[in-house]
Amino acid sequence: MKIAIVTTGDEIMSGNVVDTNSAWLADKCWMLGHEVVWHGGVADKEDTIIDACKLAGERAEVVFVSGGLGATLDDITLSAAAKGFGKKMVLREDIWNDIQAFFKKVGRECTENNKRQAYIPEGGKPLANRVGTAPGVQVKFGKAVFFFLPGVPKELYQIFNDSIFSWLKEKSAEVAYSQKFLKCFGLPEASFDERIKGISFKDIRVSFRVSFPEIKIKIVARGRDGAKKMEKAEEAIKNRIGQYIFGADEDTLPSIVGGLLKKKGLKIAVAESCTGGMISNMLTNISGASEWFERGVISYSNRSKIDVLGVKESIIKEYGAVSRECAIEMAEGIRKLASVGIGVSVTGIAGPSGGTKDKPVGTVHIALAVGKKTLNEHHIFSRDRESFKMFVAYCALDMIRKSLL
Amino acid sequence: MKIAIVTTGDEIMSGNVVDTNSAWLADKCWMLGHEVVWHGGVADKEDTIIDACKLAGERAEVVFVSGGLGATLDDITLSAAAKGFGKKMVLREDIWNDIQAFFKKVGRECTENNKRQAYIPEGGKPLANRVGTAPGVQVKFGKAVFFFLPGVPKELYQIFNDSIFSWLKEKSAEVAYSQKFLKCFGLPEASFDERIKGISFKDIRVSFRVSFPEIKIKIVARGRDGAKKMEKAEEAIKNRIGQYIFGADEDTLPSIVGGLLKKKGLKIAVAESCTGGMISNMLTNISGASEWFERGVISYSNRSKIDVLGVKESIIKEYGAVSRECAIEMAEGIRKLASVGIGVSVTGIAGPSGGTKDKPVGTVHIALAVGKKTLNEHHIFSRDRESFKMFVAYCALDMIRKSLL
Repeated sequence: MKIAIVTTGDEIMSGNVVDTNSAWLADKCWMLGHEVVWHGGVADKEDTIIDACKLAGERAEVVFVSGGLGATLDDITLSAAAKGFGKKMVLREDIWNDIQAFFKKVGRECTENNKRQAYIPEGGKPLANRVGTAPGVQVKFGKAVFFFLPGVPKELYQIFNDSIFSWLKEKSAEVAYSQKFLKCFGLPEASFDERIKGISFKDIRVSFRVSFPEIKIKIVARGRDGAKKMEKAEEAIKNRIGQYIFGADEDTLPSIVGGLLKKKGLKIAVAESCTGGMISNMLTNISGASEWFERGVISYSNRSKIDVLGVKESIIKEYGAVSRECAIEMAEGIRKLASVGIGVSVTGIAGPSGGTKDKPVGTVHIALAVGKKTLNEHHIFSRDRESFKMFVAYCALDMIRKSLL
Repeated sequence: MKIAIVTTGDEIMSGNVVDTNSAWLADKCWMLGHEVVWHGGVADKEDTIIDACKLAGERAEVVFVSGGLGATLDDITLSAAAKGFGKKMVLREDIWNDIQAFFKKVGRECTENNKRQAYIPEGGKPLANRVGTAPGVQVKFGKAVFFFLPGVPKELYQIFNDSIFSWLKEKSAEVAYSQKFLKCFGLPEASFDERIKGISFKDIRVSFRVSFPEIKIKIVARGRDGAKKMEKAEEAIKNRIGQYIFGADEDTLPSIVGGLLKKKGLKIAVAESCTGGMISNMLTNISGASEWFERGVISYSNRSKIDVLGVKESIIKEYGAVSRECAIEMAEGIRKLASVGIGVSVTGIAGPSGGTKDKPVGTVHIALAVGKKTLNEHHIFSRDRESFKMFVAYCALDMIRKSLL
C-alpha cells in the first residue's frame, strides 16, 4: 500500500523539536512491505492542517497524522481534519469515562479541558492509549484510511504497536521480515566503519547509527527466508565487531550487567566521584535492581572518601583524589563496607574547570574490586561535562560486564 | 516571508534516516523572523519531486529543497524540479572546474559521473560548497525563490551559513525580535492551560510544550518594541503561574538549586532510595557542583539505611522503609553525617513490582532537613519506572528550591 505521513505542530515547524515520529512510522511501514510516498508537515492551523490532510489523502491509501491530540486549545488536528472532510465531531462517552479513569488512577485532577479529547470525528474508531489520555483515531476520510496519533513518541509507539501494526501486516503482500538491533560500545566510529565495510547480503539491509556513547547496528531482512538470512548477517557482523557488542534489541548495558549479576548471585556496590550518581542511577533503572544493587556512595568531597569509604588520608595527600591509588581504595572500601561481591569506583575531573597539566580535564580512573583482584583503567576523555559522565559510566559498566563473562 | 521546506530521499522516506535538516533550517528561519508554513517529503522519483516542489512553490515565497544533489544516478532533484517548471539544465564550466579542483585537492579520482553535478537549471546561481562537491543552487521558479541544498548536514549548514543566511536576514522586515523561555514544574498540563487561557498581546506569540516533567513556555516578541512587549507578557504569565515557574531560558531545576545553595553559602547532602542516584546525578551535572554538593548515599538496602544513615531499625520495623518516619530519619541522618546545612531524602516504590494495598507502586516520601525543621511530602505517582524516578527527583529538587527562596 501507498502510505502518507502528516506531521502537525508549531514546535516542529519552527524547528524547536526534531520530528522523529515520521522516521519511526516509515521504518515500520517499510518492514511490513508498504511504501511511504508522501510526507507533509504543517503548523497547528486549521487551514493548513486541512490542506495537508487532503493532499495526503489524494496520494496514499493510508495516512498517518501525528500531533495535536492534546488537551490544550492549540490541539486542533482532529477537528480541523473532520471539518476538511465535512464530518462532525461527536462526544464519545466511553472515551470520556476512560479519560476520567486515567486521571483518577494517576491521582491528578481532570478538568473540563480534558473533555476536548473525548470528541472524535463521526464514524471514527478510538484506539486505546495506555500511556496518556488522548486516544488515537482510525477513520475513513474520502478514499483513504486515516490514523490520527498523538505527537508524544511513547504514546504514538504504543498505539501503533497495539492497534495498527497487525492491521498493516494483514494488508501486506510481503509478511515475512525480521529485524534485529546489535548494540556496541568502546569502538570508535571510524574503526567501526572500517570493520563493517563491504558487508552485504541479498534482501538484507544493514545500517548503523551512533547514539552516544553506543553504536547501534540495525539488520533488517525481508522475504520468506528472513530469519535464516538474518542469522548469517548477524554472524558475519559478530565476527568483525566481537566483544564490542554487548547486547541486542531491548538490552541496555545496565540491563546486561544486572542480568549477569543476578545469574551469578552477586551483589554490587558503587562508589562514584566524578559521575555523581550516574552509574547507580543507570543500574537502578532496571526493574528488580534491589536484588543485586546493594548501595551507592557519591563521595564528592575528599572528606566523604575518607569518612565513608575508608580511603587513607595519606593516599589522597600523596597521589591526589583523582588517581589510580584512590580509585582502588574506593572500590575495595565500598565492597567491604557493603559486604558484597563486587565494588566499583570512579574518580576523575569532569570539568570544565579543575584540570592541571598532569591531570587535564577529562582524566578518570576506574577500579573494580572483584574476586581476589582489583582491576583498574585510566582514560582521558575531554568533552562536555555530561558526555564525560556518560562515557565514564559506560566504561565502568562495560568493565563489570567483561569481568562477569 | 513564508517559507517551505522539501526533503527528498529514499533513505528518509523509508525511515532509515531521521531528517534533522528540516528542523535546523526551520530554526534559522524562525530566528530571522520568517515563518515555515509547509514541509513536504518525497522519495527520489521525478514525478513526486515535481509534485512536492510545485505545491511548496504555491504556498511559500522561499522554498528550501534538500537532498538529491549527489553524483549518483538516483540524485535527480535538480533535473526533476527544472523539468517541472519548464526550465533547461545547462552545463556550467566554472562548476565543473571547481569539482575537478576539489577532487585533486582531496586526492581522489574524478569520474564522468561527477560531471552531472556541474549541470544546473538555466538562470540558476551556484552556491559554493566548501565541504563536498555538489554546489547549492539558488533559482527562481514561478513566483518563489528556490534554494537547492545537499542532504549531507555538514554541507547544507555550510552553504546556508555562507550564502543564504544574510540574504534571508535582509529580506526580513522585522529584524528586531526577542525570545524567552519560562520553565515550570508541578502544575498539571490541563490546569496550566486553564490558567494561561486568554493571554494575548499584539506581536507576541505565547506557546508551550510539555517536556516531562517540565512545561516550557515560549514567548516570542516581534517588532521594534519587542523587549518592552516581552516584559509585559512575561509579567502577565508570572501573575498566573507564579511559583510553578522555576527558571528561564538555559536554567534547569538543578542549576537553579545549585545557584541558590551557592548564594546562601549552604552545602547539601542527598540520601536516595527509590531514585537510585538520579537526584545526585542531576545536581552534579552542574559545573562547579563540588562547591555545594558534599556527598550522596544511595541506600537501596535496609541495611545501608541503618548502617550508613543511622536510621533506627525500630523505625523500619514499625513503619517500613517506605514511610514518612524513615524519610525524616534519612534526611536528618545524611545531614548530620555530612555536617552540611541541608539534607534531603527520598524513599518509595518505583515498581513495577513491590507494591502493597497500603503502599501501592508509585508511593514516595520525601523529606528535607533544613534549618531547625524537617519538611516532608508524600505522593503517589503511578507510571513507568524511569518517569517515576524523574518525577520524584523533580519534586525533591523543587522542595529544596522553595525552601531556599
